[in-house]
Amino acid sequence: MISVVIIGSGNVAQHLISAFAKSDTVEVIQVFSRTVDTSIKNIDSSKIISAFYQLKAADLYIISVTDKAIAEVSAQIPFENQLVVHTSGSVAISALNSKNRRGVFYPLQTFTKNKPVDFGEIPICLEAENEKDYQLLETVGKSISDKIFPINSEQRKALHVAAVFVCNFVNHLYEIGNEICKENEIPFEILQPLIQETAAKIMTLSPTEAQTGPAKRNDTQTINTHLNFLSNETQKEIYKILTKSIIDNGKKL
Amino acid sequence: MISVVIIGSGNVAQHLISAFAKSDTVEVIQVFSRTVDTSIKNIDSSKIISAFYQLKAADLYIISVTDKAIAEVSAQIPFENQLVVHTSGSVAISALNSKNRRGVFYPLQTFTKNKPVDFGEIPICLEAENEKDYQLLETVGKSISDKIFPINSEQRKALHVAAVFVCNFVNHLYEIGNEICKENEIPFEILQPLIQETAAKIMTLSPTEAQTGPAKRNDTQTINTHLNFLSNETQKEIYKILTKSIIDNGKKL
Repeated sequence: MISVVIIGSGNVAQHLISAFAKSDTVEVIQVFSRTVDTSIKNIDSSKIISAFYQLKAADLYIISVTDKAIAEVSAQIPFENQLVVHTSGSVAISALNSKNRRGVFYPLQTFTKNKPVDFGEIPICLEAENEKDYQLLETVGKSISDKIFPINSEQRKALHVAAVFVCNFVNHLYEIGNEICKENEIPFEILQPLIQETAAKIMTLSPTEAQTGPAKRNDTQTINTHLNFLSNETQKEIYKILTKSIIDNGKKL
Repeated sequence: MISVVIIGSGNVAQHLISAFAKSDTVEVIQVFSRTVDTSIKNIDSSKIISAFYQLKAADLYIISVTDKAIAEVSAQIPFENQLVVHTSGSVAISALNSKNRRGVFYPLQTFTKNKPVDFGEIPICLEAENEKDYQLLETVGKSISDKIFPINSEQRKALHVAAVFVCNFVNHLYEIGNEICKENEIPFEILQPLIQETAAKIMTLSPTEAQTGPAKRNDTQTINTHLNFLSNETQKEIYKILTKSIIDNGKKL
């Protein structure tokens, strides 16, 4: 068994703990939580610690805390030359304290508390400083997911930006759609099939092939009708810049 | 059987023809196509006409042409006091020529040529000028979909704007994600599970509950890292306005 210590108890940490609980090759031997958090699931409460000196020797330390805390937390690990990774999409491998061997174990998914996810489908992006450490991370990754990708720090930065566009920003557009529906007494469920189909389409078509709508058709009459309809200035700005971007992309083709 | 004539041969028209072909209560007796288009599927080619004088009497005429052409096409129908509807999300019922009884039959979905859709799940938004016509539209709608909603012209305008946000604009964000991946030699498939999960989440959570990411956390360090990373000015503008909008929404809660 590969022994793993998880440092952190947020969404990503909790989802990792639950995924490893089903693994035959990886055992989570400790979870570090600043405030001993008894709501952590799928781990025996005796394994939850709240002081760094309590940390046991392990094959791998996974730091899953807020981005800002990664450097400091990695400095507090009372060992040297151990394999220590973080799970962040936006922090370079170099942020980890150099007294240990460093790596990244970044599951690219949106995790919501209490909403289970199928970890097997989640791509895990790995980085390590040497081949042996990479192989250990690969074994750990494969124990919970079928999709393992080597991604270096520069690529991971790009990937995280791309993920903000296709996840966080997309969800915000859902939120705007919901607001417009509410203001006009329209059930949001009318939009659900459209939302699901829009996501499903790009499983088989490229986003460029899948693009439809007034901006794609350069239908200025409809675009102006929509801009006149929108009274919220921010929504209007978002409508304008995205429409312009779609029209500009069309010209490039 | 309710007899229907479809005027138009674009994506929406083709999907309606295919859906009605499986219906037991509705029969498409003619399809009008300006240029006789033999690529139209699920209709006998003898039923395809290209001149308005060839139009037969029918219970319902469905005009499925570009928004701009709706008024003119409706004026050319050589009948009076028939039920004539259009399928547009962004055109008022009043755009139809008043010599006939008017209505709207708006399937809210994104249709892509040659990609089949399950019509049973597609919401159809109906509007008519009198109860009897509404009932006929409801019967026709129910023959192909389980989701029928009465939506007046003002609501439909709102709905169409909302649909642009949650479909066209969302797809464009997928396109930007794809571009960022390409530029950094990252396979776009890494983002697929994230995209599917982001859409799936709002089947059970409201978009506001589902929101995650640096803007939601007001994580200015990550936001600035991303803005420095983006070299495309339009992408940078989109990032800024959507981030601002998410932060502003957070303040309202």
